[in-house]
Formats: sequence, structure tokens, C-alpha cells
Amino acid sequence: MAGLGIGLIGTGYMGKCHALAWNAVKTVFGDVERPRLVHLAEADQGLAESRASEFGFAKATADWRGLIADPEVDVVSVTTPNQFHAEMAIAALEAGKHVWCEKPMAPAYEEAERMLAAARAAGRVAFMGYNYIQNPVIRHIKTLIGEGAIGKVNHVRAEMDEDFMADPDVPFYWKSALSAGYGALDDFAVHPLSLLWSLFGHAEAVITDMVKPYADRPAKEGGRRTVENHDGANVLMRLQGGISAVLMANRAAWGRKGRIALQIYGSKGSILYDQERMNEFQLYRAGGSLTEAGFTTVLTAPAHEPYNRFIPAPGHGLGFNDLKIIECRELIRAIAGEPFSGITFEDGLRIEKTVHAMARAFHEKRWVEID
Amino acid sequence: MAGLGIGLIGTGYMGKCHALAWNAVKTVFGDVERPRLVHLAEADQGLAESRASEFGFAKATADWRGLIADPEVDVVSVTTPNQFHAEMAIAALEAGKHVWCEKPMAPAYEEAERMLAAARAAGRVAFMGYNYIQNPVIRHIKTLIGEGAIGKVNHVRAEMDEDFMADPDVPFYWKSALSAGYGALDDFAVHPLSLLWSLFGHAEAVITDMVKPYADRPAKEGGRRTVENHDGANVLMRLQGGISAVLMANRAAWGRKGRIALQIYGSKGSILYDQERMNEFQLYRAGGSLTEAGFTTVLTAPAHEPYNRFIPAPGHGLGFNDLKIIECRELIRAIAGEPFSGITFEDGLRIEKTVHAMARAFHEKRWVEID
Amino acid sequence: MAGLGIGLIGTGYMGKCHALAWNAVKTVFGDVERPRLVHLAEADQGLAESRASEFGFAKATADWRGLIADPEVDVVSVTTPNQFHAEMAIAALEAGKHVWCEKPMAPAYEEAERMLAAARAAGRVAFMGYNYIQNPVIRHIKTLIGEGAIGKVNHVRAEMDEDFMADPDVPFYWKSALSAGYGALDDFAVHPLSLLWSLFGHAEAVITDMVKPYADRPAKEGGRRTVENHDGANVLMRLQGGISAVLMANRAAWGRKGRIALQIYGSKGSILYDQERMNEFQLYRAGGSLTEAGFTTVLTAPAHEPYNRFIPAPGHGLGFNDLKIIECRELIRAIAGEPFSGITFEDGLRIEKTVHAMARAFHEKRWVEID
Amino acid sequence: MAGLGIGLIGTGYMGKCHALAWNAVKTVFGDVERPRLVHLAEADQGLAESRASEFGFAKATADWRGLIADPEVDVVSVTTPNQFHAEMAIAALEAGKHVWCEKPMAPAYEEAERMLAAARAAGRVAFMGYNYIQNPVIRHIKTLIGEGAIGKVNHVRAEMDEDFMADPDVPFYWKSALSAGYGALDDFAVHPLSLLWSLFGHAEAVITDMVKPYADRPAKEGGRRTVENHDGANVLMRLQGGISAVLMANRAAWGRKGRIALQIYGSKGSILYDQERMNEFQLYRAGGSLTEAGFTTVLTAPAHEPYNRFIPAPGHGLGFNDLKIIECRELIRAIAGEPFSGITFEDGLRIEKTVHAMARAFHEKRWVEID
Repeated sequence: MAGLGIGLIGTGYMGKCHALAWNAVKTVFGDVERPRLVHLAEADQGLAESRASEFGFAKATADWRGLIADPEVDVVSVTTPNQFHAEMAIAALEAGKHVWCEKPMAPAYEEAERMLAAARAAGRVAFMGYNYIQNPVIRHIKTLIGEGAIGKVNHVRAEMDEDFMADPDVPFYWKSALSAGYGALDDFAVHPLSLLWSLFGHAEAVITDMVKPYADRPAKEGGRRTVENHDGANVLMRLQGGISAVLMANRAAWGRKGRIALQIYGSKGSILYDQERMNEFQLYRAGGSLTEAGFTTVLTAPAHEPYNRFIPAPGHGLGFNDLKIIECRELIRAIAGEPFSGITFEDGLRIEKTVHAMARAFHEKRWVEID
Repeated sequence: MAGLGIGLIGTGYMGKCHALAWNAVKTVFGDVERPRLVHLAEADQGLAESRASEFGFAKATADWRGLIADPEVDVVSVTTPNQFHAEMAIAALEAGKHVWCEKPMAPAYEEAERMLAAARAAGRVAFMGYNYIQNPVIRHIKTLIGEGAIGKVNHVRAEMDEDFMADPDVPFYWKSALSAGYGALDDFAVHPLSLLWSLFGHAEAVITDMVKPYADRPAKEGGRRTVENHDGANVLMRLQGGISAVLMANRAAWGRKGRIALQIYGSKGSILYDQERMNEFQLYRAGGSLTEAGFTTVLTAPAHEPYNRFIPAPGHGLGFNDLKIIECRELIRAIAGEPFSGITFEDGLRIEKTVHAMARAFHEKRWVEID
Repeated sequence: MAGLGIGLIGTGYMGKCHALAWNAVKTVFGDVERPRLVHLAEADQGLAESRASEFGFAKATADWRGLIADPEVDVVSVTTPNQFHAEMAIAALEAGKHVWCEKPMAPAYEEAERMLAAARAAGRVAFMGYNYIQNPVIRHIKTLIGEGAIGKVNHVRAEMDEDFMADPDVPFYWKSALSAGYGALDDFAVHPLSLLWSLFGHAEAVITDMVKPYADRPAKEGGRRTVENHDGANVLMRLQGGISAVLMANRAAWGRKGRIALQIYGSKGSILYDQERMNEFQLYRAGGSLTEAGFTTVLTAPAHEPYNRFIPAPGHGLGFNDLKIIECRELIRAIAGEPFSGITFEDGLRIEKTVHAMARAFHEKRWVEID
Repeated sequence: MAGLGIGLIGTGYMGKCHALAWNAVKTVFGDVERPRLVHLAEADQGLAESRASEFGFAKATADWRGLIADPEVDVVSVTTPNQFHAEMAIAALEAGKHVWCEKPMAPAYEEAERMLAAARAAGRVAFMGYNYIQNPVIRHIKTLIGEGAIGKVNHVRAEMDEDFMADPDVPFYWKSALSAGYGALDDFAVHPLSLLWSLFGHAEAVITDMVKPYADRPAKEGGRRTVENHDGANVLMRLQGGISAVLMANRAAWGRKGRIALQIYGSKGSILYDQERMNEFQLYRAGGSLTEAGFTTVLTAPAHEPYNRFIPAPGHGLGFNDLKIIECRELIRAIAGEPFSGITFEDGLRIEKTVHAMARAFHEKRWVEID
């Protein structure tokens, strides 16, 4: 049987990441058909051809609708800027393709709703790119929680921090405009939300404060321009099952590069994780001797599946791009109708609903319930 | 000139800590008079005498009012349980003594107000025991912020976590009763609040969520008893100068032993601190080469005054009890009318006002402003 | 122009790692021709075919000599057990192929010498698989040292520790037999040696002690069998330029999983590195303020080339397998006659000469000079 | 019963540290008599009097022999520069006093031998100041090893590094002169040796390399002066019971401030320790689940005696000076004829013998056995 036919729209960083995954998934996992890299679309024909050559795709086009119409294409990777996701994903679904769309679904909630509706109507797999949940460390944390290793979880803290907006002298660019969204909240708080969703399910109520470290920034055209959204957001949350959570996201946090830190407290222990050291986690289990009690730093190991598909020895480390290969394998599982781990449009929409509720809670200065 | 005459009421852990400080302050700092350890009070005469012998005090009594009346006593250390602070501190102030009272001032805000009123009326030094702010590391962080080393601070996170209430099988005891207060909030959130106060000044507005990990606990008399307060509290705060802060306190956080973690983000850098490693901090400064940018872990050193009064070499480490010796030196400075670093009843009251506002914000589910 | 034709012999872990690299190198780097995966050899035809399908190779064989004779093959990846390296590499070189051979060259020094001789006679690229030196972090450390960022290096410590032999109840298997070599010394001390070579050049004199933690191990056939080599080795070294070094290698070090730790001390600063956290290093530079002096933890970033070919944002992390892709790019550079970074048979032989000198220094209990 | 009468000779840092200990030991431990601070000696009368006032001693003298003759003095703390130790300690012992002498005993081995002979002849307690072994963390590590928690120890690495000689522009001063000794080896390698002795007993054979990072240094009188000893030493060691050890000491290691790092590997686990974080250690125990295996970071706690005499809550941290108070308690135990933990002149001499053997092994470039 031939492997899935792949179409890729967009060849920025995430496009390259998808391409690497489609190239590697068979070699890493063995137990899938080798995908056929059929068609690649970019903004202009020259770039499309050059990227197709680099990424190993057979055909190149500047017309993404042509890619979607290509009968050889079974799955469409959508890795374009956020504002194009809805149109492309819906068109692909309507053409009967499976879709692998980078997060978030769409800037506007209504568009995201239309994406889900299209997925339901098409009966195709509509899969989000949320690769952090695919880290074998995160998967194992999920297993530990499921097994009750730390008892009943009652409190969680999630932090996501980077510093690409930390410099007040960075000129105003589109990320600071209202049209780009709320700021840190939708720019990247969706990542820790995907982790919270994966580990604990959805949020039920939120109250938010936001941080605008710099009122204005140098305008490229001279003078200064008022910053229109917030580089930081802090949220008190109530999750399913009465878990109290705090979410903190900040894209102006000097020194933080790719931090997604989790603190998970349960009745029998605790778990700590930080994405900047993505190949380890820390576990504390109650009940041991007081003289030897402490957090154990666990390095990724073959027993944390599917690390073993990449490396047979512990402590050697996966990279960020490897997580996309794992996600790719899960997508293939979903298409095959097998049990999978991943975020579909259904859950993706709920994550975005939560983000919008957080923003409302800030503007209305009150707790907002999410039904 | 003779040194200050010291009276000590209470000989639990903090009483011992005061005694160690009074014994050591002259040897450590040199530039003070050696305090005279005059009088010690405990609940019964036998214990008082035994402790007086251990701690080096000349007289022992079961009558703390007698201690306060002792003309040889110039300063009274109050280290008894919280509910006795007001009565003892007020009596001592009214007798013309200086007072060094362990935190918090009093469970009820009105009592704390009366303590401040007594201090004002007496014109004596009324000093709180908040020794974490005396850590040379914290003092240096304050200096760095003051010098603008990390620019204008815009966001702060403070966490205080221990695990003495983490075990659901710990029987109900007084700490879980409403009469003991709100729980984590007043039990120990005052510590990170003292740090926030020391570094940034007071809070202006707060909204709170609280965590009750266990609805009930085993009752000593059999059966189970409903837990009446909250082992965790999470607070969104606005500090002076528009700083956005998040305060998280949890006394049921498995694995945390003496954690007070600070994350301080400014326009030119960041500072991190964790009390469990109290002899170091981390500093990130913007503007360096991208290939060598990162957090620098700085170990305490003689240049972080007054570490040099204890040890002349860097990286050797002070202990928790040493901070009380530094605080003692500051108290002596205050009594001598010299500039000092410390929390008087004035600021102590404001910290407790903030705690009460946080509790109200939780119960009323709304932002509360603090005037 | 067509890309290089690739032959792969051996499909264990390192074979898979080579396959992943050959599959990805074009997508990651863009600026190379896409390699043609021509021919794969394994011990039997069935396995060869199944692996060829997984790894994306066109032809499969149980006859590695047939692969070497294949005119479509330009480069042969040799990833078989160590005892086969010499025969295969020499045959490939004699057939005019370039060779990419996993470390070490061969168990016996004479065989390794023959491999180098064959490479010289053939005039082909003979490249070793020593991927740790390709880590952008290690490359940047090399740059820093070269630029004098830490002044003149005078002292280095290198540790390599794992725990796969730490359990005394692990039955005797081939790794403990004399036929497998000296033990830790040649089993994996070559890794830190490759780093020392890359950063500082070759060793000039050594004295060694070895550790045999367990005199015997359970024999599979019952009873116990005497362990014939050493699971640990400690070496005092003199490197080029008068650098004093200590090398410690231990494969029975409980808790160590993939540790390769470097401490590099110079006249103006220090650098620390640990392979278990391969996406970061620590740098101390003399001359700053005493109150802010400390080790800076630097996370990998795009400015550490070629990290940027994988990920455009800092702090996201490469994995072990990514290093092989970088090594593959260097090999292609070498084949193209361009400047490259890597260990050829020339330097590989010197590394192995050093290992044998270390063993002699142990057995003769004296310093051994290496000419 | 009256407490011990104390005489203190020398009031530099270690003198102050002794004074703090004598002042605090009763308050901390309770179960001893309060020492009487009788007599203090310094180089001139003015300094002696000022220090006596600071440290709380009753009498002050510029004549240390007078102090030794004082019948009120029972114990003499000797904290003067190393070259005076022998004369003072011997005189004190001959006068029937107990002696508490800071490490090392004496620069010349023969002097140290005379000190031990004097102690034996006097029948008095002759106790060394080696306070690192008194850290509750170290004591607990000793307990763990004794209980077999990590099985039979087979390999140990000990590192001691500071950077006070790291700057090549530091002018030549007495520490670089041959008269000061071998350099790092006797300047501070005795500290890790005291730990090795405490945990594993004495060394049986050694081979050494030494590091002289800078051939000369600026002379105070102008020009440059040749450095006469070695700022670094690396030693391969065989300890009692066949343990293989590596000792590395370096006082020119930029960035290291008070590092004494131990790695202890046994048949069932490992222990790590670093003096720069003296309130914690790391423990790995074999036999657990592969998915949760790792080093556990244990913070000091009351259960690590005698931490509980200082602080009743875990994770709050002792300081360097607190270790001297513990040592003081052990000395009092020794004087009372009770079991104690500490290094007497007997073992101190053996440590110094080891140091001299290490130096010989370097100069003679061979393994040296220590009988």
C-alpha cells in the first residue's frame, strides 16, 4: 500500500519542521508507510520550487488551491501565518483532505468555529500542531498523573516566558498591534494551555491581569507608536475537578528563551518541568524517609515512549524538531482510525475559547466562567 | 557605655533565634556594645530557668509582666505565639521599652492597629522580625534594582511553598481552624510580602483565589473534621509604580521545604532568587552578545554586605540564623537613631492590611483596592 | 547535478542515526544536493529489505561487498560492530568510495593503522563518526577558546560516565571480556578524547589508574565469571601547550546516563559543559564586578551555528540525532573539498594511539609519552 | 559545675569563627556547660583588648605564653598563621591544656609529628579544626554509606576549587613562595582529604600531577617574580578497601568560590555533594523504576542531626560558621571522654603525611605508597 500523499502550504520555520517530520517519520517509527511528498505551495513559484527541492517535494506551486485540488494529496499541512489558517484548512477539508494545521486555529473565534464545522462536515481528520504535548517527558508525566503517582492533583502553576519583546527599543511591528490579538495571551499562552488540556482537561473559570511593560515603542516611520496589546498575562484558573491553577505568560521576560514551566502539586507528590530542559522532569513522592526526601531529576530514557524509537540509550536527548516527528506519527494514527494522542479541532477550539474568556475577564475585571 | 539590656519572652524556635542573635551580634559586628542578657520569661518558672541558663540570661521568670517592669531591660524580644503579641508588645511599649516582635503583628487587624498606636504613643522603636529581607543577597538585589541594573521593573512573581500541610493524613490541628486565620495567606504569605515591600513598596490592588486541597482531615478524637481555612492562595497584584505581580503561597506543596522564589523582570534584565538556595541569586542583563547571553548565578560574597562581617571569603554561605543577627544589628541601629533597614510596626501594619484585603478579594470574588 | 549516492552497512542504532541524517541533511541545510539513498546492507536479506524500506534505501543486500562494488554508491556509512570496521572501510576505500565510519576505528591499533593507510592510498575522504564535537555548543566553546574569551587555557577536566555496567548483577557479557578491549577506556573514553582533541589538540603524556568495581559477574551458564577488563579509568594527562588535564571515564557510575562533563579553566575565565544538558553551557569571565560575578548559563541559540538551520528561536533545543545531521553536512563539505569540521582517520588514529598509551601507563604504572 | 575556661590565640577570620562558636555552643545545644571566655591573645595589647571586648573574653594579652599559663584556661584555640601552630599547641599541651588547632598542623611534617608526640605525652585532647566534616549533610552521607545505602563504594572523585589565585595579574605574595608549601596541595587539598578521611579512611597510594598556570607574577617591587609552587594539583589515589579516587585541587579556577565537590559511586547507588550548596546533596539509588530513576536533591532537614539544634524546619539552611559550633560541641564531647566526631592530631598527622606523599609522587613522577 502506498503511503499518504502530502501537501505542504507554507515553508517558514514550521513548514520546514513539518517537512522534516514527513521525511523522517518512516525511518524513526518503521511501522508506517513512507509518506509521499507530493506538492508544496509557497507565495511565489520560484520560492516554491526552491523549497520543494530542499524539502523533497515532487511538485511546487504558487497556487495553494491547486495543491488542495491535487488528487495525489491526502493530507495538507497548513503552516502559513495565522490569518490564512481558516481559509486554507476549510478549503482542504471541503476537498476531502485531512488537515494538519499549526496552532492557533484562527485569530477570531468565529473563524475557528467555522474550521471545526468544516472538519465535522468533511468527516476528515483535522489535527492541530501542538507539539509540546508529544514530548515523551510530558507523556510520561501524564501517565504518572493517571496512575495516581502524585495522588489527586489540587494545584498547578504554568509559566511560559520568552524575551523577544523584552527590549523596549524593539520598534513597533505587527505583533504589538491590536489586529495581532491580545498579545502574550494568544501569541503563546496557547502552548501551556495545550499542556494543561492534555494533562488535566479544560478550564472552567478564569480571572486575568495583563502586563504592558512599555506604553509605546519606536515607530519605524519615526517618533513613537502606542503599543496596542499586552506582552504579559497572568491568570487565576479553575480547571476540571476543582484544580486551582495559575497561568503566567510573558514575551518580555528578559533571559527566558523557551521556557514553559509546570509545577503540579498532588496529594501524594509533585512534578516539575521546564521546557528549556525538555529532556528531564522532577518528581517528588511523599512517604519516603525524611532524610532522603527530595525532588528526583529524571532524564529521558527509552522507557519513556517513544524516545526509544529515536535513541536506545537514556540521557542522550531529543530535540524540539523530534517532537514534530512524534506528532506526525500520531496524525497518521488518527488518519488510520487508531487511538492517538493529539489535539483535534474540537479541543483546539476549546483552547481558543478559553483564551478569549481570559481576555474578557481582564477587560471586565471579573471572573469569567467557561461553559 | 553599657550595652542594651535585653528581655526575651518566649523560647520556642524564634526565641532561641533571638537569643543566638543577641549573643552573637557584638562578636560578628564589633561596632556595637555587647548586649546584656537580663531577663527571660517563659510559661513556667522551671522552663524559664533552664532556658535562661541555656541562652545566657541572668534572670528567669514565669511572669512576663515582671520582665517588662524590669528597669534593667531596654529592649523586649517578643517571640510568643501570635495571639499574645499585641498584649505583650503594647505593655512593653507602654513601659518605655523598645520592642522586637516576631511577625505577624496580630491575627486581628484591629489589634495590630493598637500595637502601632502604642508604638507611636511611646516613641519607642517597634521593630518586626522579618529576617528574610536581611539576607545580603536580598539586600544586594535591592541595590541592583535601585541602581537600575535591570531597568524599570514591570513584572514580579513571588512564590512561597512548604509541605508541612501536604499530607492529607495529617490530623486536624489548630492551623486548620478558622481561628488560626485564613491559612497560607497569613500563615506565611507575609514573608514574600515582606520581600515585595522591601524591594518595591506596597500593594495597591489585589484579586485572590484560594486552594483547599483537602476538605477534611482526621480528627484526633476520631472521625473526620472539616478543614476551615485554605492551605494555598494565589493572588494577582498591582504594586506601586504599576508593577504587575503574582503571589502564590502554598503550605501543602509536596517537596517544597523553605521555598521563597522571586522572579523580577525589568526593562533591562531579570533577577531570580530562591530561599532554598539562599546564598545565591541569578541575574540576566540585556545588551550582551547573543552567543553568551544567559542567567548568571552569583554566589554570596564579602562584597555583598554585611556577609563580610561573617566570612571573608566568597561562596562559603550564611545560614538562616545569621539573618537574625543582621536584623539584630539593624534594630540596634534603629534604637541609636541611625539609618536602618527593617520593618517597623508602621510597615508591618500595611503588610497585614494587604493580607486582609487579599482575603476579602477572595471571599467577594473581586479586585480590592488598598488605600 | 545529482546528489551523492549513499551505501549504508549496518542498521543498529548508529545505522538508523546515519539514515536519519542522510534523509534530513538537504531539508535542514538546503545548500547541498539531496543524497540518493542507494544501497543498504545487513546480515540477512530479509532484515536488509525491511530496513531499506524503513530507511528509504532503494536496494537491499546481505552482501556488503556487493554494496561496495555498486557504482551508484559514492559514500559508504560503516556502522557495524567495531571488529568489522577495518575490513569494510578498507574495502570501500579500495573501491574508491568515501567512508564514514563510526568510532572507534578498530579494536587493534595495527588495524586502525591499516585503515589510515588505505585512506591515504585511496585519496578518498575517510571520516569518523564522532558527533559530539558537532554540537553547536561545543563548536561555540571552541570559538570562545580560540578568541581568547577565557584567556590561555591551563587546566581541563573531562568526565564521561554512564551506568549500564553499574549493576553487579548484570551477567557477564562480551563487554567484560578482554577481547572487547580495556573497558571504559576504549569503550567510550574516546568520546571525551574527541572533545579534547577538537578543543585543544592531542595528548603528549599520560598516567592512568583503572577501576574494576566487580571482580566477577554472574555467568549466563551458571556460577560466576571473572571480569576481564575495567569499567572505570582515571587519567592524568598533559595536552599540547602545557595544559594539564584529568580524564575520568566510568561505565559503572550509577545515575549517570549520558554524562560528558567538561571543566575548562583559563587565565581569564572558565567554561563548563555537561552532555546530559547538551543545549547549554556555562561561562565565567574574569574582570566583572565582584558583586555580580558568576557562571552564566547560556542556552543554545540561533547565533550558535548551525543551530539556526534547525530552529530560528533560542532555547528550544537540538537532540542527539541532530548532531549526526550536522556531521553529515561536514562530511559532504569534506567530500566537496571545502573546509570542514570533523575527525578524519588521521586524527582518529591519534585518538586511538592515546587510548593504547593510557592502557600501557596503567599496566606499567608509569607516565607514558605519546610522540 | 563551671564550664570550660577558654583561651583564644589569634583573631583573624578563624579566631572570630572560634569565638562565635564558644559564644553560641551552649545556646544551640543546651546540653553543655556555658564556656567561660577567659583569655584572648593577639600580637599587640591594643588589638588584644579590642578583640577581647568584641569577642566577649575577660582578659586580653599580647603574650600568648601568659594565656597558656593562665590556670583559668582549660582549652586553647590556636588560630594563628600555620607556622606558629606547632610552638603554641605544644606549649599549651605541655601546660596541661586541651588544644583546638586550626588545620593544618604545621608546614613541616616533623613539626606535626612533634605536635602529636606532645599530645600523647600530655594526655590531653588535641583536636583539629576541620569543620567541613561537621556539616550535617556530610555526616548523613557518612551514615548512608555506613548503612550500605549505595552498596560498596568503589570510586570517588573529590574536587576543591577556588579562584583567589586565578588572576595572573595578582602580584606575587607569600602564598606563591616555596616557603608557603606546595601550593594548592597543602593550602587547601587538606579539606577534601579531611572529607575523604571521614568517609572512607586513609589513602594507601598516590600519583600526582601539578599545575602551575602562571610561571611568574608581577613583583611588588617591580618586574616579575617566578612562581615557586603550584596552584593546582591532580592526584590519582587508592584508598582503604580498594576504592579508586581522584583528587583535584585548584586555587586558580576562575568562577569557583568555595567548591568542594564529591562524587561517590557504589555498587547500589551514588552520592553527589558540592560545598557551594552546602545545605543539600544528591542521592541515586539503584533498583527503582527506569522511568523514574534519577538523582534526588535532598535539602538539609531536622532529621539530619544536629541541624535540628539550629532550626526545627527543613530547607532553611545552616551557614559556614554554624559548622564550627558543631565542631565545638564535638570537642567538648571529646574533652568529656564521650564518643565524638572529629579529627585529632593522630588523624591530622596522617592527612599531612598524605599531602607530603602526594608532593613526592609529583616530584619523583611515580606512584608513592603510604604506610
